[in-house]
Amino acid sequence: MSCDFCQKPGGALLWRDDRLRVVLVDEPGYPGFCRVIWNAHVKEMTDLPSADRGHLMVVVLDVEAVLRNVLRPDKINLASLGNMTPHLHWHVIPRWRDDPHFPGSVWSAREREGPPRGLPDLDAILRDRLAVRVGNGLPR
Amino acid sequence: MSCDFCQKPGGALLWRDDRLRVVLVDEPGYPGFCRVIWNAHVKEMTDLPSADRGHLMVVVLDVEAVLRNVLRPDKINLASLGNMTPHLHWHVIPRWRDDPHFPGSVWSAREREGPPRGLPDLDAILRDRLAVRVGNGLPR
Repeated sequence: MSCDFCQKPGGALLWRDDRLRVVLVDEPGYPGFCRVIWNAHVKEMTDLPSADRGHLMVVVLDVEAVLRNVLRPDKINLASLGNMTPHLHWHVIPRWRDDPHFPGSVWSAREREGPPRGLPDLDAILRDRLAVRVGNGLPR
Repeated sequence: MSCDFCQKPGGALLWRDDRLRVVLVDEPGYPGFCRVIWNAHVKEMTDLPSADRGHLMVVVLDVEAVLRNVLRPDKINLASLGNMTPHLHWHVIPRWRDDPHFPGSVWSAREREGPPRGLPDLDAILRDRLAVRVGNGLPR
């Protein structure tokens, strides 16, 4: 079976441990768009034992906290869909009122181009902040 | 400030305690579409203390477990967006391969009509199952 998240990192690696990884996705108009991807090929949250569910959500919310602190978005969107890639992963998406889809979801019809936005070296900044907040993890 | 989830239940009440409520949304083509709504007007998960985040996610995942058990969907979608209504709530959405938007999100372009689907008395069934799984909660 071919699965994108079994075969590829899914973005620029920001943090990882032996159960999951956090990656930065290159999505134009959406600086700081992160994914938290469970390493094992599991479909649903409720396929995980309770301790693993808790660990995954703690990391998802640590990513939310770091993104809020660094980027000061108007809103955070959290989603675990997996209809196309049924390998457990969370989208953590900073949103701004003038971004391409606001107030729709990033999967809704595009409303506008949206301004250029971001920070130089955002990946390095997020790596540092996650290492402080979540802990050192494994080497990249 | 006018807020839909401060003023209205947001769906048919299935379960509640002193912190949150679970409601069934009447969304054609999506039987079992539930929302878990935090009672207080809070914007983001990381605005909650850690114990409250944990409680909310435990209930969200209990709803997922009940929906999988009762409806046997092909996938569950979880999302906390709040761009239109920035009052913390989670969508817990059973998905089927032939539903109106699959494999897109329910906010994506509609792909087809989708077959009629559901169970008679689904609200009563879900109320009973949630009472068993999450605990008795407060009277409706």
